[in-house]
Amino acid sequence: MSDPKISLSDMRERIDSIDRQIQELISERARRAQQVAQVKGAGLSAIDYYRPEREAHVLRMVVDRNQGPLSDTEMVRLFREIMSSCLAQEDPLKIGYLGPEGTFSEQAVRKHFGHAAYSLPLGSIEEVFQEVAAGNADFGVVPVENSGQGMIQITLDLFLTSEAIICGEVELRVHQCLHSQNGRLEDVKRVYAHAQSLQQCKSWLRLNLPTAECIAVSSNAEAARLARHADDVAAIAGETAGRVYGLKTVAEAIEDRADNTTRFLVIGRSLFPPSGNDRTSLLVTVNDKPGALYDVLSPLAKHKVSMNRIESRPAHTGKWQYAFFIDVSGHISDEAVQAAVKEIDGNAGTVRVLGSYPVALP
Amino acid sequence: MSDPKISLSDMRERIDSIDRQIQELISERARRAQQVAQVKGAGLSAIDYYRPEREAHVLRMVVDRNQGPLSDTEMVRLFREIMSSCLAQEDPLKIGYLGPEGTFSEQAVRKHFGHAAYSLPLGSIEEVFQEVAAGNADFGVVPVENSGQGMIQITLDLFLTSEAIICGEVELRVHQCLHSQNGRLEDVKRVYAHAQSLQQCKSWLRLNLPTAECIAVSSNAEAARLARHADDVAAIAGETAGRVYGLKTVAEAIEDRADNTTRFLVIGRSLFPPSGNDRTSLLVTVNDKPGALYDVLSPLAKHKVSMNRIESRPAHTGKWQYAFFIDVSGHISDEAVQAAVKEIDGNAGTVRVLGSYPVALP
Repeated sequence: MSDPKISLSDMRERIDSIDRQIQELISERARRAQQVAQVKGAGLSAIDYYRPEREAHVLRMVVDRNQGPLSDTEMVRLFREIMSSCLAQEDPLKIGYLGPEGTFSEQAVRKHFGHAAYSLPLGSIEEVFQEVAAGNADFGVVPVENSGQGMIQITLDLFLTSEAIICGEVELRVHQCLHSQNGRLEDVKRVYAHAQSLQQCKSWLRLNLPTAECIAVSSNAEAARLARHADDVAAIAGETAGRVYGLKTVAEAIEDRADNTTRFLVIGRSLFPPSGNDRTSLLVTVNDKPGALYDVLSPLAKHKVSMNRIESRPAHTGKWQYAFFIDVSGHISDEAVQAAVKEIDGNAGTVRVLGSYPVALP
Repeated sequence: MSDPKISLSDMRERIDSIDRQIQELISERARRAQQVAQVKGAGLSAIDYYRPEREAHVLRMVVDRNQGPLSDTEMVRLFREIMSSCLAQEDPLKIGYLGPEGTFSEQAVRKHFGHAAYSLPLGSIEEVFQEVAAGNADFGVVPVENSGQGMIQITLDLFLTSEAIICGEVELRVHQCLHSQNGRLEDVKRVYAHAQSLQQCKSWLRLNLPTAECIAVSSNAEAARLARHADDVAAIAGETAGRVYGLKTVAEAIEDRADNTTRFLVIGRSLFPPSGNDRTSLLVTVNDKPGALYDVLSPLAKHKVSMNRIESRPAHTGKWQYAFFIDVSGHISDEAVQAAVKEIDGNAGTVRVLGSYPVALP
């Protein structure tokens, strides 16, 4: 494909011509998005036009079509930003999340809603639920599961007492490494990291650095920064941060579970139609009697609905009652899911559909 | 333009077809960018291909062509991200800035380099200069001027002792407003804001809220968040933050200077060719004698080089010596700029060219 006779200026001219076409098409796309808005009615905000199922569908087509050289993640990111800009022609979406700025939660907001949405850093996960319920935020993004530490109980418990509806999920993958100036494990006397990262790597640290002092700092970037100044200090941080700060890697993938993914839920106030590849979250409350769980699970098996996750919590609503958070494949409008839910509800326990939403994109 | 007979699904099909074309073109662009990289040599990092003058030229064409409906700022943002992704096919650029994450400095990094670059939050402006000099960061982004408070002296002083070269400038416009729950000035007893914002609005506060208690908090977003819970608390924050947090605006544009722009410089290790609309920063050291400043300025006037900024600092290098930081229009490779600099150097004082770089984009 590369012709040595083509000069740099020729190549740049070709890129200019590509850019001209990209720009025309983005403008055209923005005009079409405005038309869609006009069909739906004038004077509304982005929340009135936002369709997560449509966005997920568009992004899945982007992944299917992608043949490189850009990675799926980068291509999805660019389309997310294009859609974010088109949508923000109306009053932009307001997204609440657990602040402050610069955290994983903000990354999740940006990954899902792009940079043209407004983000509201809030003081607690509870506040995110409250602001969404009150309509001050259009959506909220809350962490629900860390593959190293399991489900985040406070988030689950808030579903017990709120009417939030799950409208999406976002996954962030984080690999933790130990970095230091000279890369030698035997020299490490102190380990700096964010408290959560220290927690995620506890077993590894206990086994490999039993006498090292563990010191929590404000972020892993800060930890990496501090580690540059002494040979006996190491930092837990992502691969990128280590490289960026010019450190050597002492050990890779030191988190207690190797696939360290944080999963976030997007919460809102209404249920959206299917996107073609969806997940449904159910909250099932049962009385604590023998076989209760079996009664919940057998209708799912019978209707061939596959279960992705289950987590039990005391329900707080009555003595001996238990709540199960169950994620299944499919949308609540699918016949099989509907039939299974109907069969559980009333017989085995009480079912609340927490939401049906597109499966997380790369 | 809008035909009532076109259904929503027709519109979506048209958008899908536009997306398909956009994606083909972005992939094509990424391939072309790889070819440019191959011409320059294999196994290099993004820093070896990055051409700020070319990027500025591309983005200026984007602005010239833009006919809406997206704003120039949004369209430039999208192209910045596309270029950022294309460039990051090689080892991405590493950008040092004054941390922590979530600050205006990080916004400036993202506005200039997009989200595919690596960013390194550092502990001080001095450290940004050091990491760039040491080659750990490819570029640094440092605040140099706040229209409310003038030049940032520490940054200027670091140019006196470092060999950093200015490769770009970034402007962020920030309007401060006073927000509260009920929007009534007479109820305000306490004002929350980031320390810098309190400083920027000092005169307004002294005049309009002389007895209110001013409390510095970690960010203006945090201030807005706190203001929601009491009628006697107000927050200084941008228009967006106020809206996002559901507050009423008590007063607009309360900063002591109405055009509250923070200007950042991009520092690097080499000088880049002209982009077609450039600025040159000069550091002129003179002996403190009568007429010294005149001797510096008259060659500029003679060669019709227009001066954008001037700031004097004690030079630290010798008794009675002064340093002038002077920004002029044009690139150092322009004949007029070259001639003027040559005439100042040796006659009036010693001139160091701190850099020639594209004028900031919207």
